[in-house]
This record gives sequence, structure tokens and C-alpha cells, in this order.
Amino acid sequence: MATAFLARGKEQRVYSGHPWVFRSDIARVQGAVQDGDVVRVATDRGQFLAMAVYNPRSQISLRLLSRREEPIDRAFIQRRVKRALDYRRTFADLRSCRLLFAESDGLPAVVADAFGDIIVMQVLCLGMEAFKQDIVDALVDELHPAGVYERNDVPVRALEGLPLQTGLLYGAVPDRVEMVENGVHFWVDVKEGQKTGFFLDQKENRAAIAPFAKDARVLDCFTHTGSFALHAAHYGAREVIGVDISQSACAFAAENARLNSLEDRVRFECANAFDYLHAAQDGHEQYDMVVLDPPAFTKTRSAVAGALRGYKEINLRGMKLVRDGGYLVTCSCSQHVLPAMFQELVLDAQKDARVQLRQVEFRTQGRDHPILPASPETQYLKCGIYQVFK
Amino acid sequence: MATAFLARGKEQRVYSGHPWVFRSDIARVQGAVQDGDVVRVATDRGQFLAMAVYNPRSQISLRLLSRREEPIDRAFIQRRVKRALDYRRTFADLRSCRLLFAESDGLPAVVADAFGDIIVMQVLCLGMEAFKQDIVDALVDELHPAGVYERNDVPVRALEGLPLQTGLLYGAVPDRVEMVENGVHFWVDVKEGQKTGFFLDQKENRAAIAPFAKDARVLDCFTHTGSFALHAAHYGAREVIGVDISQSACAFAAENARLNSLEDRVRFECANAFDYLHAAQDGHEQYDMVVLDPPAFTKTRSAVAGALRGYKEINLRGMKLVRDGGYLVTCSCSQHVLPAMFQELVLDAQKDARVQLRQVEFRTQGRDHPILPASPETQYLKCGIYQVFK
Repeated sequence: MATAFLARGKEQRVYSGHPWVFRSDIARVQGAVQDGDVVRVATDRGQFLAMAVYNPRSQISLRLLSRREEPIDRAFIQRRVKRALDYRRTFADLRSCRLLFAESDGLPAVVADAFGDIIVMQVLCLGMEAFKQDIVDALVDELHPAGVYERNDVPVRALEGLPLQTGLLYGAVPDRVEMVENGVHFWVDVKEGQKTGFFLDQKENRAAIAPFAKDARVLDCFTHTGSFALHAAHYGAREVIGVDISQSACAFAAENARLNSLEDRVRFECANAFDYLHAAQDGHEQYDMVVLDPPAFTKTRSAVAGALRGYKEINLRGMKLVRDGGYLVTCSCSQHVLPAMFQELVLDAQKDARVQLRQVEFRTQGRDHPILPASPETQYLKCGIYQVFK
Repeated sequence: MATAFLARGKEQRVYSGHPWVFRSDIARVQGAVQDGDVVRVATDRGQFLAMAVYNPRSQISLRLLSRREEPIDRAFIQRRVKRALDYRRTFADLRSCRLLFAESDGLPAVVADAFGDIIVMQVLCLGMEAFKQDIVDALVDELHPAGVYERNDVPVRALEGLPLQTGLLYGAVPDRVEMVENGVHFWVDVKEGQKTGFFLDQKENRAAIAPFAKDARVLDCFTHTGSFALHAAHYGAREVIGVDISQSACAFAAENARLNSLEDRVRFECANAFDYLHAAQDGHEQYDMVVLDPPAFTKTRSAVAGALRGYKEINLRGMKLVRDGGYLVTCSCSQHVLPAMFQELVLDAQKDARVQLRQVEFRTQGRDHPILPASPETQYLKCGIYQVFK
């Protein structure tokens, strides 16, 4: 097995707990090695640091698998999958759950989501592709799903030198899967939906709105397939309007409403959320709860300033639409918008809106998406629940 | 009614949502006024900003009550108390709950905690002392408690020009009150215990350890009257050791264990937690869960550096005592140790301990202690739950 020696001093980042080594931090690789191979990682003086998968084509050339000198084989993968599932078994329903969250589970760039008895997987680095079958086998052994489907249609695979592909990895997978999240039923389009078909990272945040939804009139902006909107109705909201710019998302959301027999209290409008908020303000609308769960306004650090303007605008308008004593639920999944930046913009919007906010909770992604403190990249979701006073 | 005019530009802090005005930011007070009176607050040009209580003896000379020009009277106090209770009614058991959280509830420096059918109150600024009876009456009207007790034995009262006093404000109050928090029974020493007798701010955090406590061997450092220790046992821990330096706290904690019939699984040791952690490390002890819930290591900004060293030491030792795959629950209630500083020191300790952490949750005080985003002073509690890998 080859050894990758880090440049002098670059072991500090590894000691600090970060699971990546950048190409520029590797001094040399000794021994025969092919792209994607498992290698030993060592300091410049040869002290063992970690086992990792190696891909010099990627800027993230080493992704750490273990800090013990141990074989990285089928048994190792089985232990890692079992560890990930045992953790989640303590608190989660494994039928609506992120089962594997990549680096946070010691399985770099590997994601697996469970929807009912179907598992959807993504393998987004070259080195882990070699272990794909071992991961599937371990998941099947532990959970006995009806099917496992791969959604490897993600452009980042090309940068790793991997083909973009989707397809069946095990059993049988229908086009649409029915899933129950916090007691709310959803159709999940595992084959064509965004990413794995459903955003499970908001599951605990959707549950957190329960106390404030009862009898409420709710506006859910960027509702996508209706997840917050249907939760609000499930928790007792008397009237819910979900807004999304995508006609197909609204149609899908309406189907989800019917699946829960909530179509009498939830309706979906196909509109640009910015425009909708503007018009609602002009119409002097007031809601007991406004939910803002937009898609990432930026995926790059350089575009953060523009994204912040967008977030501020919807938050400013959103809080104006909340009645005195009502609630604003405001989210951002942009990784580059750090929690402190997001809180700052909410504060800014409060000042401009001339309202008073109090923070009920400031949440992040659910516990099935655990965070590596050494790797801020693993924390990306912000979800603030605020009470608004006028 | 007198009007306090702010120095030019100082209205910005008020606009930003902060509930205080410092003495140095007041330009002049016009009209007859006595210490503790309600006044109007205006910009230097006379534009109305807020209603506030005024006390030039305190550095915080104006504490805002309302941003509307409205009478501050018995009816106002009733509305504020009702608003505070209605908020908590949506999610809390009002028999173990902070009912009034001062500035966060628009009732500056006023605190009220419910333990069973007893309410314990603190009024810590001169201006609100005049409304004490109105607050008691409103609480009694809404909640019909058996008794209300004041714990105004807090030195800050002297700075406000108020006497230090304790005593009955309504009904009858026994020396010890039985309370149920998350299903765990506690005796609360409302007359002699710290602050109001019990720290309710950790209630939701204590509940958050439930999934990780089952069958666990748990070490709870700084256990005080046993709150985390007894929760762990209640949630299924097989063996719990609570450590506190105070003999009387340990004796009280042991009584709480008997109250829950948990004395077979929970024991308390009277020891300095730093020493205990050191000895446990020397003895190669391993726990499934280590809880660190120390008292504030600093109450001033100037002593933060020393406090951080203390926090780092217990965290470093604590994480070494957690078995591979076990959990560290680590808290800080020092207001001057900001959440980011606390996370940084945990990361630092991780590096020195040569372990890997993953963050399950990073929590703050419970929702009955809501936070004013404009006033960082209202957020003081940090509670991180981490899984530890070796």
C-alpha cells in the first residue's frame, strides 16, 4: 500500500479533526498507487496519521477513513455502516432518515436516505465507488429494504472522474415511494426528484413548528413538495398557503395534500415567492406564521453578498406579514452563509421592518445529519424560529 | 410624565431592538421625575421611541417596557403577563417552567419560576418594584398557584437602591416544594436554594440526553441537586455517579434519588469535580456518557481567559473518559463565554485529547427562556451533545 506524506506542518489540520487533505498539502506519494486507491497518510517524517482514499484529480485529494492503521475492507465498511445505523436507532425512525451522512459517518462523500422501505444512495468520490457494493450489502443486511437506488447523477462525480448514472442497486424500486415523516405522509420521487428525492435535513425543524401551528393561518414560501405546509396543517393550522415557482412542485405538493386528506385546509400557489411576499404586503395580509425555506441562494463563497441581500429581502417582507405575536420560521441551507451571518441579517431585517423579534429556537440540520466540529462544511442548515411583536 | 431625551445617534441601539439605554446615552430628562418612575424615551429631536422605567443610579438607566406610547399601568402588566403565559402554554408544562424571563418577556429584570403549584419571583430593578403586586395578581389570576414567594435576596438589588428581602407574597409556601420535570421528581428548596431554587433553563437539555442514556454508565459532574444524573437514570442508565463539591447538595441529590426510587442506580460523591475527573482518568475509568454542567466559571468579561482554561480542562478530561462511541454532554452558563468561544474550546480540547467528536446537537437555554437577538445578554447557556470516537 502506498503512503502519502504531507508537507511539513500540514498534519495539524488532520490532528484538529478535519477529514480532508488538499492536493497542495501532500509532499509526495511513495509506492504504487492508482487514482481512488486506499493509502496510508503520514507526516513528512513518516509518522502514521490516517487511512484515506486518494484521488489526485480532486482538490480534496485525500479523504480520511480512519485514524487507526487498519485494513479498509468489506468488514471495515460493515462496521462503519452499523455504527451509523446504531447511532440513529437511538432516536430516529429509520424509515424517514438520513442513514449515512458522508464524512460525518466516516464514509466520505457517501450519502444514503431511507424513505419507507426504499434506500436512495449517492457515492460522490472515486475512492468510495470501489466500496459501493459493500455499502449496499451492509445496508441490506442491517435494514432489509425492498430496494436500493443510486442517484449518482451529480456533476461533482465528473470532477472525480466518475460517470453520472442512476439505477437499481438492489431489489425493486417504484417511481414514487410513500414515506411518513413526523406523522405526515409524502410521496417521494426517488428517481427524478431533487438530490435523493426529499430533504430529510429539515425533519426535526418541521416537527419544531408544532406548538405554534395550531389554529394558525400559515404562509409557506418556497414550499417545494409541501413539506412545511403539510406539517403546519397536520399540527392543526386552519389555513395554509404554500407558494412555489415550480408548477410541477405545486402539483406534487397538492398530491401530497390529498394523500393526507388535508386539501381542504392547504392550497398551493405557483408564484415567485419574492413577488408573492410583495403582493401580500401590498394587500395588507397578516399570517399567524410565515415559513421561509428557500433553496440555496448561493453555492459559492464569492456570491454570498448577493445571497444575503436576497435573504434579507424575504426576511424583511416575511416578518412584516406576521401578525403581532405570531411566528417567523426562517431557514437557509447555503453552506457559505454561516449561522452568525444569518442571525445578523435577521437582526438587520428586524430593524428595517420596525418589529421586535424574540428567538424561540435557533436550529440546524437534524441529528441524523451530525456535524464534525472540525469541519464547518458539515454544518450548512440554519432554521430560526422567532416570535414577532409589533 | 417626564421625557428622557437620548444623545444624538443613540436611538440607533433602540431601533436595533435592544431593551436598554445606558446612563451615558441620555442627553437630558425633562419634567419632574423620581428614581424608578416610568418615563417617555425620545430622540434628541423629540421623536417618541419607547416607554421605560428610569433609574439614574443604575448604569442601565432606562429599561424599555413598550415601543408604543401607551399607559404603563396594571392593565399593561396584566397583558404582558398573559402574553408570557400564553406563549409558554403552547409548548410547556406550566408546573415546571420559567413563566417570566425579564427583558425577553417585556418585563425588565422580573423573573418568575413555577415549581408545581408554587411560584418564585425576583424583581431586580427599582422601576419594576412598583409593579410587583400587579405582577403577583396577574400570575394568581391566570394560574391560581398555592403560593408566591419572593427571592429578592440578590446583591444587584442594592445597586438599584432596593432592599434585599425574601418572603411570602401570596398564599402559603412550604420550605420544600415537589416538582416534576420531564417525568423526574425533584424537591425544590424555594426559600434557601440557589437563585429561585432550581435551574429550569436546562430542562429541555436534560430531556435531550434521553436517547443516549439507555443502559449507560454515566458520570455527571457538578451535579448540584442531581438533575442530569436523575434524568439519565430515569431514561434507563444502568449506573450513574453524580459528583458535587457541596455536601449539602449531595445530600439533597440523594433525597431526590429516593423520591424517584432510583437510589439503587444513582449514587452521589462529594468531591471536587476537577480532582474526580483526574482520578477517574488515572484509574482508566470509561463511561458511556459524561455530563459537565459546571456553575459559571466567570461572571465578568475580564476573567474569561481563566474561565476558558477551566472549561478546557474539564472538557479535555471529560472526553477522555468517554468510551469509543459514547457521549459527552458539555455545558456552560457563563454569559461572557460566547457560543463560538465555547465551541472553539471544545475543538481545542478534542485536538489535545486525540479523540474525534461529532456534534449531535448544540443547544441553548429552553424555549421558556427566549432570547432577544438584539440583546446577546439574554443568551447565556450553551449545551453541546457530542459523540466521541477514539
